[in-house]
Amino acid sequence: MAAKEKGLDDLFLVNLKDIFFAEKAILRALRKMAKNAESDELRQAFEKHREETEGQIARLEQVFEILGKRAQGKTCEAIQGIIAEGEEIMEDFAESEALDAGMIAAAQSVEHYEISRYGTLRTWAEQLGMEDAARLLDQTLAEEKKTDELLTKLAEQALNRKAA
Amino acid sequence: MAAKEKGLDDLFLVNLKDIFFAEKAILRALRKMAKNAESDELRQAFEKHREETEGQIARLEQVFEILGKRAQGKTCEAIQGIIAEGEEIMEDFAESEALDAGMIAAAQSVEHYEISRYGTLRTWAEQLGMEDAARLLDQTLAEEKKTDELLTKLAEQALNRKAA
Repeated sequence: MAAKEKGLDDLFLVNLKDIFFAEKAILRALRKMAKNAESDELRQAFEKHREETEGQIARLEQVFEILGKRAQGKTCEAIQGIIAEGEEIMEDFAESEALDAGMIAAAQSVEHYEISRYGTLRTWAEQLGMEDAARLLDQTLAEEKKTDELLTKLAEQALNRKAA
Repeated sequence: MAAKEKGLDDLFLVNLKDIFFAEKAILRALRKMAKNAESDELRQAFEKHREETEGQIARLEQVFEILGKRAQGKTCEAIQGIIAEGEEIMEDFAESEALDAGMIAAAQSVEHYEISRYGTLRTWAEQLGMEDAARLLDQTLAEEKKTDELLTKLAEQALNRKAA
């Protein structure tokens, strides 16, 4: 590939494809996690975040459109690993009182992966002068942070309930 | 395994082994990333965090000791995926002006994985009444957050330098 030296715009596109793939994998994982959740609050949290994730995928499609590129995922080994760990916990702790705590931990790993990716993409979008894309990415970033905070609250509640 | 129902203590141990494996993988990755960094600031940041990581591994060994368990890692697919993506970026952007930006993004994914894991482990340690372990985990959590903030600053500086 001697065509043109790779720049920040190429890096942006690679990472956009990465998170596009990741969001679709997360959508599938959330369905399974909602089904397995013990507490109603946690199931509702997963279901609500699944709907949110659909909106986040639509935003990514808009960013691809701004770039004039086809919306296309690129295998994201990071999210595959994070989800695989969550599935292992669901299996190994299926009958355990700690199942919800384990699923919340897995979901928070997912959220933090997304927080790091969207934070990076937003900064790069600003730098590349794509204000509209930056705004879309920032909206999703705010949602991911809020979801992570909610999960922290649910983790503490779940543990306090067990202790009571 | 019909022995005893799995509880939060088992979940804690599984995740402790997971992050112990992850920290050792991160130690190796940081060596490579420091070698590849373009800017002196980024190289120094990676080298400093490598030293910090050695201390974090020692803290985890203390937590294993508190539990009366042998310090032992468990394959962490999440960190393997995150590191593999970083290596791909280092390869594909080896000659690019965006190399440092890509490595910073990869390192921030690593930090966020650790932030989620240490946050979870600290909460569980408190719940399990292991105050000393909670304190050790909290020290590392604070370091990871600080490293993430430093990387955000370096990302903005790197981009501003390119733009100038």
